[in-house]
Amino acid sequence: MRLISSLLLFFLVVSSSAGYSGGTVPGRMRKNPAARHPCKRLIFYFHDIIYNGENAKNATAAIIGAPSWGNRTILAGQNHFGDLVVFDDPITLDNNLHSTPIGRAQGFYLYDKKDIFTAWLGFSFVFNSTQHKGSINFAGADPLMNKTRDISVIGGTGDFFMARGVATLMTDAFEGEDYFRLRVDIKLYECW
Amino acid sequence: MRLISSLLLFFLVVSSSAGYSGGTVPGRMRKNPAARHPCKRLIFYFHDIIYNGENAKNATAAIIGAPSWGNRTILAGQNHFGDLVVFDDPITLDNNLHSTPIGRAQGFYLYDKKDIFTAWLGFSFVFNSTQHKGSINFAGADPLMNKTRDISVIGGTGDFFMARGVATLMTDAFEGEDYFRLRVDIKLYECW
Amino acid sequence: MRLISSLLLFFLVVSSSAGYSGGTVPGRMRKNPAARHPCKRLIFYFHDIIYNGENAKNATAAIIGAPSWGNRTILAGQNHFGDLVVFDDPITLDNNLHSTPIGRAQGFYLYDKKDIFTAWLGFSFVFNSTQHKGSINFAGADPLMNKTRDISVIGGTGDFFMARGVATLMTDAFEGEDYFRLRVDIKLYECW
Repeated sequence: MRLISSLLLFFLVVSSSAGYSGGTVPGRMRKNPAARHPCKRLIFYFHDIIYNGENAKNATAAIIGAPSWGNRTILAGQNHFGDLVVFDDPITLDNNLHSTPIGRAQGFYLYDKKDIFTAWLGFSFVFNSTQHKGSINFAGADPLMNKTRDISVIGGTGDFFMARGVATLMTDAFEGEDYFRLRVDIKLYECW
Repeated sequence: MRLISSLLLFFLVVSSSAGYSGGTVPGRMRKNPAARHPCKRLIFYFHDIIYNGENAKNATAAIIGAPSWGNRTILAGQNHFGDLVVFDDPITLDNNLHSTPIGRAQGFYLYDKKDIFTAWLGFSFVFNSTQHKGSINFAGADPLMNKTRDISVIGGTGDFFMARGVATLMTDAFEGEDYFRLRVDIKLYECW
Repeated sequence: MRLISSLLLFFLVVSSSAGYSGGTVPGRMRKNPAARHPCKRLIFYFHDIIYNGENAKNATAAIIGAPSWGNRTILAGQNHFGDLVVFDDPITLDNNLHSTPIGRAQGFYLYDKKDIFTAWLGFSFVFNSTQHKGSINFAGADPLMNKTRDISVIGGTGDFFMARGVATLMTDAFEGEDYFRLRVDIKLYECW
């Protein structure tokens, strides 16, 4: 009888730690920070060459929206506030622009602060190779003067079905205003 | 006593299969692909009529951003790269544009590749009928020359509170560059 | 023996209510609406002053995309359909524009309906204070003539690592077309 009671106690503890049971736990709470180990981790680079009126052949991105004081071939003053850029950038495994791309980073960024460089990103990594098939979808704020900054993995398809997580961005290099390279450290915490 | 032991074993297995317990499991991993059954499935159509300078009355969408070589009444060359389109499209249960809409698809798409048609989507299905109340939010890459392509359901409200899933898009019809109809097969894997 | 059986039954019920176990439950289903208690709740205000050609100093937002019949200093006719606005708005704890900001709301909104005011939002709350560090990412439809409307919390970083939830927006005040203040009631249902 005592054994059964402790069994009961044991499972009550186990069930409540799942944080997903019944109506007593408010929301779904995961208390243990030590449990924050990614179930999948991937590191990639992507390369953005913005159209400047003269590099049509190499450009992978273009300004398509700008504030009334800006235009679409030169990034606007005031830290590019209001510039909207569409991109289709090659993804590589190392930091070499000329490595064979293993996918494309596609979407947009938006400079959104007048007194410092800051952007908002909505984009996908699209893979269709032997290594990876499917897509990873991202959104979030990119205060790009910080050494590292985190955005959200908001979903995925194919190999990345239902993925959620955090991606840490790092500006790996830039040349003037026309080229930059980002290192993306993707940590998925929900894998299906 | 043996019965109690096997009980113990049984629950240990059950709890660990939940993948949500303790700090030993890295992240939240769902290993069983057979478990990928939607908890809700919905199929809709939506209809996009893009403004071309002459169809103001019927148009449900308009170009609002374009690259420096484009304009806002004609989709740009190079596979419309850089065109940003806002839409407020009727959602229907069948593939007839003239069926009574049961909601609106609202948001934007962005053509984002020079050498093939590809878009990036951010939009919501907004319902306010006896059948459905609430919204489903979507984001993802749409390589629209593929027969089917998957985007993410990134959230929901009302009847679709906290929804997550995958939506499979299929171009059901198109007429020139001004009209297209998408079939959307929504599969939710997280239902609250 | 009867006690053991009821124990067994008890845990079977508990496990199945978790909705996350095994392959028999379709998807991950959370049936109990009473379980919809937020694990975290936060209420903020943010303030949007749109650039109108004369208020460069105070403006926190600017039109950067517009339909062919619009421009970038005056919101377009037809309920601003097609106007795309980038913002970097102060977040305050109360409804006073001049209170010390505790963060910034950064991203965009998009007017997306011709016959009524409706917008689509993609933005982040970015915090870097003693109170909060990290970001909350939002997306969703904002039928802004409704007293309250729900959008999705699609992710978070830092203090809001992996957050998911619903945010209820309320227009707390507006002055002409140049200023509005939103009250945001953030309810997180997934906390890590």
